Amino acid sequence: MTRSGEFDWIATYLAPLAAKNSFGLKDDAALLDVPDGQSLIVTQDAIAEGIHFLPNDPLDLVARKALRVNISDVVAKGARPHAYSMALGVPDAWQDNDMQLFAEGLAADQAAYGLSLTGGDTFRSPERLSVSVTMFALIDEKAYRSRLGAKPGDLIFVTGTIGKAAFGLQVATGKLAPPAPHHDFLLNAYRLPDPPLAAAEIVAQFATASMDISDGLIGDCRKLCTASSVDAVLVRDRVPLSPAVAELLAQDDTCWKHVLTGGDDYQVLCAVDPADASAFQRKLGARGVRISHIGEIKASNNVGVALDINGVEVSIEEDSYTHF
Amino acid sequence: MTRSGEFDWIATYLAPLAAKNSFGLKDDAALLDVPDGQSLIVTQDAIAEGIHFLPNDPLDLVARKALRVNISDVVAKGARPHAYSMALGVPDAWQDNDMQLFAEGLAADQAAYGLSLTGGDTFRSPERLSVSVTMFALIDEKAYRSRLGAKPGDLIFVTGTIGKAAFGLQVATGKLAPPAPHHDFLLNAYRLPDPPLAAAEIVAQFATASMDISDGLIGDCRKLCTASSVDAVLVRDRVPLSPAVAELLAQDDTCWKHVLTGGDDYQVLCAVDPADASAFQRKLGARGVRISHIGEIKASNNVGVALDINGVEVSIEEDSYTHF
Repeated sequence: MTRSGEFDWIATYLAPLAAKNSFGLKDDAALLDVPDGQSLIVTQDAIAEGIHFLPNDPLDLVARKALRVNISDVVAKGARPHAYSMALGVPDAWQDNDMQLFAEGLAADQAAYGLSLTGGDTFRSPERLSVSVTMFALIDEKAYRSRLGAKPGDLIFVTGTIGKAAFGLQVATGKLAPPAPHHDFLLNAYRLPDPPLAAAEIVAQFATASMDISDGLIGDCRKLCTASSVDAVLVRDRVPLSPAVAELLAQDDTCWKHVLTGGDDYQVLCAVDPADASAFQRKLGARGVRISHIGEIKASNNVGVALDINGVEVSIEEDSYTHF
Repeated sequence: MTRSGEFDWIATYLAPLAAKNSFGLKDDAALLDVPDGQSLIVTQDAIAEGIHFLPNDPLDLVARKALRVNISDVVAKGARPHAYSMALGVPDAWQDNDMQLFAEGLAADQAAYGLSLTGGDTFRSPERLSVSVTMFALIDEKAYRSRLGAKPGDLIFVTGTIGKAAFGLQVATGKLAPPAPHHDFLLNAYRLPDPPLAAAEIVAQFATASMDISDGLIGDCRKLCTASSVDAVLVRDRVPLSPAVAELLAQDDTCWKHVLTGGDDYQVLCAVDPADASAFQRKLGARGVRISHIGEIKASNNVGVALDINGVEVSIEEDSYTHF
């Protein structure tokens, strides 16, 4: 296929995704209405080829991943996203069909999450695709859940299951070759995170502190502890696992490292007062969100996060996937 | 110097730039308060090394350019920016002193424009620096100036002077070697745009349509015409020039092409009802903003933008710098 120019691509593939008050992407900016009494949540995460996704990942899934890593942040703050802006760094090799497939991915997740596009930018990024998304959500200011409110005695919960995306990255890079059903499940978990949208309001109602897990369970829990000036103990055998991951761990116990420190989970990690814990779990269960009690917040003793393995507390050296 | 990790850089260099309600950049997101009766303007432009700036441009100026290309959009909409989010793609070659210099540039323009940083992301961009900024401004919804309201008979105005950045790019790439004072003036015009912040409220009060000029005067005027469903005539010899550019044109008349179609002006192009024109000019003059009447909006005859040279209307073939 031939390649059109920047303005044609915007008109053909992106303008149909435009939000109200964004002037069909023909203007330099967009207006966001924020109703009285509400605040706007803003978060911005970028993903780049070869860093956060792989060169042969399907482009519709890359587009959806770019949205979902941001949706994950918003959900962990107790809100549902409603619009986004995007700066798209387009590789020189892209053709019209690449742009079309990418836009189809955006459209699919706009429908799935109730989003629209306010605007943004496209620019040349010769060597590698990059997608920088700024996500917007509305919330009552009091409902916003930061990382900063956890207190000693709070119970630590996590949504969904942990570790499947880390194994999926190993599958994608040829380091792991599990049998076919696990292969596809794990690869898909890496390519397309599934942030628990239905959890947002319940997190807002009950969590004392909350964040999404993007860089690894242990390392991100440490960040929450630092922000809240507390310590934590996580119980390894309470960490929720998918059957594929449980099977891999049964074969090789050293793979726990991937589960506990691998990235790309995009689940919610939060602290809840023990008096609220059963209502919190019941309400999430009623919405079909898997929720697991995996540890407890402790008074700060400069330990950070300890891991309880069969009743023995240990530490993990390399506790977080840092992109640098 | 040694190189610190992503989290250290954020804590050391970016956290001091953080906005209120952004939790010292320790959280996943930030809150933006929007007072009753106001709307939020959002715009997002990215700049990349080798595309929008050159590898040897000083990093503090690159940081300021990344902010100013977005400030330019906001000012053209009739507003003053007040906060921004940033996704920073960091080259593998960066060291601590590079990050420090870049942050110093951000700090300088935060002070100059009254901005603060709400949050964002840093990620590896091995081959080239990229900076994706999302800029926020508050405005009464009725004050927002889109590109869509120009009507036949409106006069066309432009702020500042045009073309100096296009010559500056030629200086930066070694294609032009003017005498020393012009050399530095032109190079600086390319590296550090100067959007007319003081014009914002006057544009909001008087313009029927407005946009910033980033991709070339003729091409951007064409976009405004398309958005407003009108044509336009621009009078070449009314286009405001700096002395350095006027001198280069006197030496070589073919350089007009750079003035009219070169990028990176970051001035405001707007249409104003003739009944308002003198008040518009007087109020901008009182604020020290140079303003020039350069043409007129015409009823649409599918001409787009015509250029009047000594009373003869001509067209220009390649009328816009497109980044693709």
